[in-house]
Amino acid sequence: MNDPDLARFSVNQMTVKQLSLPELVDACARLGVGAVGLWREPVRAYGVEAAARLVRDAGLTVSTLCRGGFLTATDPVERAGALADNHAAIDEAAALGTGTLVLVCGGLPAGSRDLRGARERVAGALDRLGPYAAERGVRLAVEPLHPMFAADRCVVSTLGQALDLAERFPAGQVGVAVDTYHLWWDDRAPGQIARAGAAGRIHTFQLADWTTPLPAGVLNGRGQLGDGAIDLREWKGYVEAAGYTGFIEVELFNEELWARDGREVLAETAQRFVQHVVR
Amino acid sequence: MNDPDLARFSVNQMTVKQLSLPELVDACARLGVGAVGLWREPVRAYGVEAAARLVRDAGLTVSTLCRGGFLTATDPVERAGALADNHAAIDEAAALGTGTLVLVCGGLPAGSRDLRGARERVAGALDRLGPYAAERGVRLAVEPLHPMFAADRCVVSTLGQALDLAERFPAGQVGVAVDTYHLWWDDRAPGQIARAGAAGRIHTFQLADWTTPLPAGVLNGRGQLGDGAIDLREWKGYVEAAGYTGFIEVELFNEELWARDGREVLAETAQRFVQHVVR
Repeated sequence: MNDPDLARFSVNQMTVKQLSLPELVDACARLGVGAVGLWREPVRAYGVEAAARLVRDAGLTVSTLCRGGFLTATDPVERAGALADNHAAIDEAAALGTGTLVLVCGGLPAGSRDLRGARERVAGALDRLGPYAAERGVRLAVEPLHPMFAADRCVVSTLGQALDLAERFPAGQVGVAVDTYHLWWDDRAPGQIARAGAAGRIHTFQLADWTTPLPAGVLNGRGQLGDGAIDLREWKGYVEAAGYTGFIEVELFNEELWARDGREVLAETAQRFVQHVVR
Repeated sequence: MNDPDLARFSVNQMTVKQLSLPELVDACARLGVGAVGLWREPVRAYGVEAAARLVRDAGLTVSTLCRGGFLTATDPVERAGALADNHAAIDEAAALGTGTLVLVCGGLPAGSRDLRGARERVAGALDRLGPYAAERGVRLAVEPLHPMFAADRCVVSTLGQALDLAERFPAGQVGVAVDTYHLWWDDRAPGQIARAGAAGRIHTFQLADWTTPLPAGVLNGRGQLGDGAIDLREWKGYVEAAGYTGFIEVELFNEELWARDGREVLAETAQRFVQHVVR
């Protein structure tokens, strides 16, 4: 149950989204997995307080809550709605006892070609959300997404851009999410990890491997650890050299994994973590 | 026939690959298009000398030849084959009378996770190919491809990386290809365009728009000008501010465009160029 190889392993709920929350908690207990990254939708469907009790009673740590964000709207009503939703996400993170809310910042509004303007609106929203989060013991983690998502999902494409945003605010309010899937191609990312670590801004470290060909829509093609092109140990080395000692969360969006038995996928993922990351 | 709005327009052959080479040449003459970017496969199928005569007799400029590259193999036999193929590509470019051979550098060898090593092997190959090209009046244009191609097509993902490679060699040997489709998300690219221009290393400027959702395999989803998220005029401004005065080549890989009448697609592309780039 207390496998030291899994001491820092956390499974993101999306990796095994076919499991209900009680099934996930039970599977973690059986495998000796001590931490989970949760998603708002299944948590709200189960009930935030009930979910918090469930993981607390099982002794599980909630490494992150995914996700707030989508902060690029120009329409004032949409923008107010997004801010309200992010306040709610912060409250949910606090209720679940996690210190980290991951933010996917949002893409370009329909018809817009103004990347710079969209990035500026993200900064404006962080200015509103950061103090609210910090008062509740929650830090916002701006997640740079792979540049293939720049138009429709996240205008923040590199760790450098994410840090340029985060550094406008105190580290206790805004930091970054380092995810190998999004950053592995970037020769500047190792230096930016050092920059992030020196400022205490690495709020979570996530893993997925890069496999090709990418599926249509490119969202659900994240590879199981060891199946792809990323030297995961190397990236673990970068964050550790930067002082990161927190959980390492495996977040896979993958139709093939979702079609399989969730407990089997969780066991495989833990085994791959030990094989390709720890040893 | 001599539309000043089309003076710098070049159509890349792949945009209308459904047209044979004589059909393409004829369609260009009818529309007043004065330049084409050619591809090796259809040129070789037609015969290099015959193709050169065809475009010369029609008064067409060949803005680029696409493409050499795929220089990342570790296997010595594969590597020698790639070098020989690139020598042939340089000869073909010289025969066609174009000064620019575009290089797509290649992805990771099967099973490899060593991006840095692959990039170093590209440099080694450029060292062999650059002098051979320059002796024949051909410049090599290293094309950074969008990071979503880093594993399987091109380990050079940013203009900064491409310039780091190119600057090891004289500008008359090795420069870069600036393509909006690959670079639009990168907030550092405008600065790198200035760097490239100052060194006389912008060897071609290519356009495609970014549309979503991306198709499976992500190769053939390049958008028609004006259909997507890229401010094309803004990027034209960057290369012009950097001193680039050459052709602006429209290169679209798009299944929907390929399914249509090629002459109609060419006319539409020229019209979109005028509407979204020139005026």
